[in-house]
Amino acid sequence: MTNALFPVILCGGAGSRLWPLSRELHPKPFIRLPDGQSLLQKAFLRAAGLTGTRQVITVTNRDLVFKIEDELNEVNQDNLAISLILEPSARNTAAAIASAALMVARKDPQALLLVLAADHLIENKVAFEEAVNQAKQLAEKGRLVTFGIKPNQPETGYGYIEYQENQVIRFVEKPDLPTAIEFVASERFLWNSGMFCFKAQTVLDELDKYAPEILDAVRETISHSKISQGVTNNNDFFHCELNADDFTRVPEESFDYAVMERTENAAVVPSDIGWSDIGSWQALGAIGQTDGSGNRLDGEVIMHDVHDCYIRSDNRLVGAVGVENLVIIDTPDALLVAHKERSQEVKHLFKQLKTAGHEAHRLHRTVHRPWGTYTVLEERPDFKIKRIVVKPGATLSLQMHHHRSEHWVVVSGMAKVVNGNKEILLAANESTYIPAGQNHRLANPGMIDVVLIEVQTGQYLGEDDIVRIEDVYGRAPIETTNK
Amino acid sequence: MTNALFPVILCGGAGSRLWPLSRELHPKPFIRLPDGQSLLQKAFLRAAGLTGTRQVITVTNRDLVFKIEDELNEVNQDNLAISLILEPSARNTAAAIASAALMVARKDPQALLLVLAADHLIENKVAFEEAVNQAKQLAEKGRLVTFGIKPNQPETGYGYIEYQENQVIRFVEKPDLPTAIEFVASERFLWNSGMFCFKAQTVLDELDKYAPEILDAVRETISHSKISQGVTNNNDFFHCELNADDFTRVPEESFDYAVMERTENAAVVPSDIGWSDIGSWQALGAIGQTDGSGNRLDGEVIMHDVHDCYIRSDNRLVGAVGVENLVIIDTPDALLVAHKERSQEVKHLFKQLKTAGHEAHRLHRTVHRPWGTYTVLEERPDFKIKRIVVKPGATLSLQMHHHRSEHWVVVSGMAKVVNGNKEILLAANESTYIPAGQNHRLANPGMIDVVLIEVQTGQYLGEDDIVRIEDVYGRAPIETTNK
Repeated sequence: MTNALFPVILCGGAGSRLWPLSRELHPKPFIRLPDGQSLLQKAFLRAAGLTGTRQVITVTNRDLVFKIEDELNEVNQDNLAISLILEPSARNTAAAIASAALMVARKDPQALLLVLAADHLIENKVAFEEAVNQAKQLAEKGRLVTFGIKPNQPETGYGYIEYQENQVIRFVEKPDLPTAIEFVASERFLWNSGMFCFKAQTVLDELDKYAPEILDAVRETISHSKISQGVTNNNDFFHCELNADDFTRVPEESFDYAVMERTENAAVVPSDIGWSDIGSWQALGAIGQTDGSGNRLDGEVIMHDVHDCYIRSDNRLVGAVGVENLVIIDTPDALLVAHKERSQEVKHLFKQLKTAGHEAHRLHRTVHRPWGTYTVLEERPDFKIKRIVVKPGATLSLQMHHHRSEHWVVVSGMAKVVNGNKEILLAANESTYIPAGQNHRLANPGMIDVVLIEVQTGQYLGEDDIVRIEDVYGRAPIETTNK
Repeated sequence: MTNALFPVILCGGAGSRLWPLSRELHPKPFIRLPDGQSLLQKAFLRAAGLTGTRQVITVTNRDLVFKIEDELNEVNQDNLAISLILEPSARNTAAAIASAALMVARKDPQALLLVLAADHLIENKVAFEEAVNQAKQLAEKGRLVTFGIKPNQPETGYGYIEYQENQVIRFVEKPDLPTAIEFVASERFLWNSGMFCFKAQTVLDELDKYAPEILDAVRETISHSKISQGVTNNNDFFHCELNADDFTRVPEESFDYAVMERTENAAVVPSDIGWSDIGSWQALGAIGQTDGSGNRLDGEVIMHDVHDCYIRSDNRLVGAVGVENLVIIDTPDALLVAHKERSQEVKHLFKQLKTAGHEAHRLHRTVHRPWGTYTVLEERPDFKIKRIVVKPGATLSLQMHHHRSEHWVVVSGMAKVVNGNKEILLAANESTYIPAGQNHRLANPGMIDVVLIEVQTGQYLGEDDIVRIEDVYGRAPIETTNK
């Protein structure tokens, strides 16, 4: 009998390279490809489709949890068990893998972990499954297996692995261009993909040997963390909310640096699987069909003499004249125009925004909450307009605002509203008014989304003017995010 | 005593070359420059500042009248008389000048007309006034005077005038580049600016001689037109709404072609007045200060290694990386990215949109009405959200919709609302509901703007679902535009 397999999806990222579509709270894994699926959904389905997978573990920032649950539920038609490890802050991959290994080892130390990234694209599914099978065999023998990608160009943004068959000769940091050219020509080097396979016990032993301070700190964190367990479709799952105080003390290190480059048990599976890490707009723009002039278009675009551009727009008309090799990315609150070959440098804009404290680095106009979404349609000093979408069965917190009154107009679905002492049902085309200082609550008791337009008025309209009296999602009485 | 001077501003244009900022119903004269004034306002102030000006006549499309009145009132601090000739359709400049000359001649056939364009920029005001004084002297002697601009580059988009002192030797149509280069080098040619000066009687005589069918048709039109007169600040003004049936029968011809190229009385005033016709985004982008990298920025922009770009954004963040010589124009519903030197070709996009019947060629999200403006904030199949701004003292029509209900939330000012049989006052943070089929009316009895958020719901939300029961602006019971 072969060992059980636990795919572990590492889902994070700064959101900087694919700005303005990606944001700090909407990083790369959530980007949708032309077929409508996000990179995260593709990673999940890839993991779910492997022989022997009975649950998929996702390690992610706790702020992303509602969004991740929405994304995974959307494609989890087989009702696979979904386990979550929620990090209060990013502590790099060694900590993330240690936490997953500890959680799996509690159940089965001999089980195999298959560590995958949520934001990679793998186009050859059959080759991927073959590579995983090879990796499993090596992992069962106690090896720490990394997946090495056969390079097709002298990429200077990746680490390289010198190899012979399944043996790792050495890891090499990001090389300069002449070295990269030499590496690719030699055919003795692979790109280091950041995907791994090993037994839980093996990786814990090696962490104990080469990075004990990380392992100990994560073990300590888990012992103080909130862990819940359940069963779905006869398969166990768990939710582990890592303790924030302990986790901040875990040293930040990459798993490559902490373990792989030091261990004597490293192995590599050369993989020709159509891999891309979608590290830039140029890479994302290389997916999908082009028109006769080499343009890739997603949205409403009119052009005159335009060549080799990637143009993507949510809901506005984009006109282009006499340009080539541009990336044009239009979102409701921010626009990017970049030269295709310079699109990696969009991270500099992201840094500028973050340094300046500009909201556009962190959030989209549409914000995901446990109960649904809200979208700011207009914001002025004395009023704010939101479109609020509440999922069937969901309930917002019982809350009160000191400074703002709210006018609610239901435009779709049936809302249950607590307004002061009254509880009322509001159908489409019905409205209610909530004066400042009055307790209120919004819920969707129906089977379809409630869509509601909220007009806020008042002298202070900040999202932090909220007093939570009761919340089914266990959120703090006062938060900086709304509802 | 010198003859009276009537500046005549021709205000029209297709809105195609400066799309998406210009639209068919928001053409070039309404474009605002970095100092906050529109080209039309600058033309008006230029005309108003001339010695002897007691009223300014504007000839324009009747659909633009509310917008023009708003624009001119904003800068008409001296309360100059403003006369309007409203064209039901565009019939080119010969017809426009004929109508102005006929209107002026009714009062004083010896008065001088100074024909100016609403969308030209003239940077040297002193030189302009000197040129006008020269032109007036020639015009008083019975000459038809055109202003010739000293060329500073071999422009192929303009007509040229060969001249000697004030004599016109010949008019030349748009030349090819080698010819243009030769013209500029010879120093014997001027650009034909489309600005003129002549006595009303002189131009009527010449029209009668060279284009009698135009003059007769315009005379016929005026005899069937609605003309009102008034006095402001001791100066007369008139409003002439040209009869639509008659005016469509006026031959379409340019004044240059109909008269100037044929008359024996032509004269030219060589003018070095800092003139530009702002014929493209490149020309508009050449106005104002650049940053150290040659960029002209208007709006919130972040950049990394960007050179010689013109970036303009109303209210969204624009990020640019590694690009140069681009024009990036961002508006609420449409975006343009064009190579600077190709920016003239934006008219091709405009044509595509017009052919396809796309609203973005015609209207902005914000639409001007006689009572104020409305802005579509969001439009979905089952609801639409508008921000409505009503000017102090203004009243919308008493109206009814068959298919849509409306929820009104006042967020600023004090509104007077007729809702069925009731008349109510609504202050900020108050709301009302108007069911489909119910008569209603909105007015602003106060001293500051009323700002109101309207949420429409219903199965049909087209602007043509409106029955007007009563309207203070004399509008038809049913129109394709709202309110």
